[in-house]
Amino acid sequence: MKKNEIPYKIYLDEQEMPKQWYNVRADMKKKPAPLLNPATLEPMTVEELAPVFCRELVEQELDNTNAYIDIPQEIQDYYRMYRPSPLVRAYRLEEKLQTPAKIYYKFEGNNTSGSHKLNSAIAQAYYAKKQGLTGVTTETGAGQWGTALSMACAYFGLDCDVYMVKVSYEQKPFRREVMRTYGAKVTPSPSMTTEVGKKILAEHPDTTGSLGCAISEAVESAVSREGYRYVLGSVLNQVLLHQSVIGLEAKAAMDKYGVIADVIIGCAGGGSNLGGLISPFMGEMLRGERDYRFIAVEPASCPSLTRGKYVYDFCDTGMVTPLAKMYTLGSGFIPSANHAGGLRYHGMSPVVSELFHQGLMEARSVEQTAVFEAAEMFARVEGILPAPESAHAIRVAMDEALHCKEKGEEKTILFGLTGTGYFDMLAYEKFNDGIMNDYIPTDEDLEQGFAGIPNIPQNQ
Amino acid sequence: MKKNEIPYKIYLDEQEMPKQWYNVRADMKKKPAPLLNPATLEPMTVEELAPVFCRELVEQELDNTNAYIDIPQEIQDYYRMYRPSPLVRAYRLEEKLQTPAKIYYKFEGNNTSGSHKLNSAIAQAYYAKKQGLTGVTTETGAGQWGTALSMACAYFGLDCDVYMVKVSYEQKPFRREVMRTYGAKVTPSPSMTTEVGKKILAEHPDTTGSLGCAISEAVESAVSREGYRYVLGSVLNQVLLHQSVIGLEAKAAMDKYGVIADVIIGCAGGGSNLGGLISPFMGEMLRGERDYRFIAVEPASCPSLTRGKYVYDFCDTGMVTPLAKMYTLGSGFIPSANHAGGLRYHGMSPVVSELFHQGLMEARSVEQTAVFEAAEMFARVEGILPAPESAHAIRVAMDEALHCKEKGEEKTILFGLTGTGYFDMLAYEKFNDGIMNDYIPTDEDLEQGFAGIPNIPQNQ
Repeated sequence: MKKNEIPYKIYLDEQEMPKQWYNVRADMKKKPAPLLNPATLEPMTVEELAPVFCRELVEQELDNTNAYIDIPQEIQDYYRMYRPSPLVRAYRLEEKLQTPAKIYYKFEGNNTSGSHKLNSAIAQAYYAKKQGLTGVTTETGAGQWGTALSMACAYFGLDCDVYMVKVSYEQKPFRREVMRTYGAKVTPSPSMTTEVGKKILAEHPDTTGSLGCAISEAVESAVSREGYRYVLGSVLNQVLLHQSVIGLEAKAAMDKYGVIADVIIGCAGGGSNLGGLISPFMGEMLRGERDYRFIAVEPASCPSLTRGKYVYDFCDTGMVTPLAKMYTLGSGFIPSANHAGGLRYHGMSPVVSELFHQGLMEARSVEQTAVFEAAEMFARVEGILPAPESAHAIRVAMDEALHCKEKGEEKTILFGLTGTGYFDMLAYEKFNDGIMNDYIPTDEDLEQGFAGIPNIPQNQ
Repeated sequence: MKKNEIPYKIYLDEQEMPKQWYNVRADMKKKPAPLLNPATLEPMTVEELAPVFCRELVEQELDNTNAYIDIPQEIQDYYRMYRPSPLVRAYRLEEKLQTPAKIYYKFEGNNTSGSHKLNSAIAQAYYAKKQGLTGVTTETGAGQWGTALSMACAYFGLDCDVYMVKVSYEQKPFRREVMRTYGAKVTPSPSMTTEVGKKILAEHPDTTGSLGCAISEAVESAVSREGYRYVLGSVLNQVLLHQSVIGLEAKAAMDKYGVIADVIIGCAGGGSNLGGLISPFMGEMLRGERDYRFIAVEPASCPSLTRGKYVYDFCDTGMVTPLAKMYTLGSGFIPSANHAGGLRYHGMSPVVSELFHQGLMEARSVEQTAVFEAAEMFARVEGILPAPESAHAIRVAMDEALHCKEKGEEKTILFGLTGTGYFDMLAYEKFNDGIMNDYIPTDEDLEQGFAGIPNIPQNQ
């Protein structure tokens, strides 16, 4: 073990925690494209979004100008229950890889949701409560977001209705029980409880569900009831705003020890972790203060940034949501059943999409077996059993560290370790048994998905 | 939320972490009774124990005189990967209970084993490696110890053979997969891989196993092979020594803020968490420096302290281990299948037993449904989903806090939150579905267990 001044884990004091979120859109010269009303193709207004989302969240969603937004004291107090999260120096991994690179990771898994999702869940539940609502509805796939929202709703005394992608509901009964323990109602999606669910089931009676379907049901369930709103755990601008707490803490911890990252790596499904982690660093780059390399890592089985189209598309399968301009595989795209874990959304955060489109970020796709190989090695040397999602970032962090070894470069790598894999052991079991498959969609598979993209003028 | 100078979580700096373990036996006027050789009824010697246990651990086991034992630097470095664990002020729980009591808990669940078990696993694997061994064998019930040892063996490059109680192996396949991910070999017990396993299966072909059986198999598997030793996750003096790191950190954190506990509460199965948590505080009391109330909490379904006998008994079902003087239900006792989670060992740490016998500690047994009610409330207000084991301590901490409310007493309560319940969702599901049973052994059940206690002179 090397002697070093930098501890294994840097914990900020509670007083050093961020008191404002950072809104990267304020520093983007070309802003992300606005959400469009699919009927008029005009940008969605506060009035149009308010029946679906909590009012203050709508304002955050549309705010492209304020760089810093105060975190209400009550949210800060809830953050203090599980934050600051540690910034960990991966001494053991560096030693194992024999790399001159210095590797850091921001670990968001030390809370019961097992991921960073709680950062936005608390904020969204807070604003729902403040607005006097009875409850919120949402969807969940891998289950981390649903768990996080259940926890937040228990804190604030809100009803929580979760539409859980049917295949996850069946394969992850324990995730469901965690949500129930926090008082949430969990329904497998598609279900017969919504019109859109009935329609999808009539057309595809054997479907195992998708995030896109579950979003449609959750939205319908919210807008059809008094006192309910819909909340979403990723993709949206507001979510990236809340998740900026990850990057702000990471940056504060690194600044405290004079550490400067060269490469910043995050896994990307809807983009909330990645967007949150990179935002303050990206802000520095946008303001011309410092240069970084950013790498978004996605599964080869759901490659929205690396093989998707940058167009306006629906956020859900039932086509009940506004249109978002994003890298997308088409709202009907469903990744192969061989794909384990999350990162299975057909689209990508408009903010992340626009940053990538402007060439400010790289994207890389990785295959499942390579991801689990990285996860296993990481677990054995660093102790933490990573979520499959997080292991995408680990894979590329390792690859970059090995590249540094080849080139003899002493770079500093920061990656986001979004969560733990305790509820993903079925996937680990497949890997342990050597029966994991890497299915990558063919060009024909992708064309099928693209065919579902709405036929509208795409030069917005 | 109250304004307060004490943060939600007190994290010591890595430099403030203990550099020595504390051995409470050194301050006990009447020492715990020695292990006896069942053949001679003489105290076990280093030479007799060395074929079973690692040599340096045997020395720790028999050391009743040295109060402080250096923690080797390498173990300290591994501790720094997941320690210090936070001392949490339960502001939300206090508010929920409307109690004047101040509640603190030492949370040991923020590592992949999900519990405090890793503290001793790392120490035991370190000494095994130092001795040049090939591997170690052990048993696991709920799975936390097996996971912890798997992690530690991955760190040190040791083989790890885990005999897992058959009912847990079947009900907790995900625990098994975590161990496999760390490279351990996991065998359901009783098995046909050992003579004692074959014998037990011949007599009880339908048995679902017990910790006592699994210990017998693990011991046989170790002593019958070159380069292997047996390790145990609780009960033993050496384990309590390693676990003193919990109490030492808790005390250092409290001292830092001038907080003095009145009541200290821990769940008790084999006694390792309880013994580790209380040891430095008990040391103060034994030296006449300060008074505390200590409460051991055990399940009503496995009530070794509250209904057991304080006699010499075997540590395992196959009667291959030395005899230990402890509160015991008889080495053949198996708790009802309705009992969820751990805390199912038939005996109790000789150190804890002797302290209890001397009247230095109280013991209380609690029923399962009341335990899960406490767990649910705790999860919903404090966020952390507790292990069923840990929830025993939560139950009594809440009861004590409510007692303070009745009496208007502003006491300070410290309890050990040993771990998380992520792998115990089958039990939570029963509770959520309202089909949890509280089975308490009858006097006749207990008599059956007592009948298995060896018929030797018990006045040692």
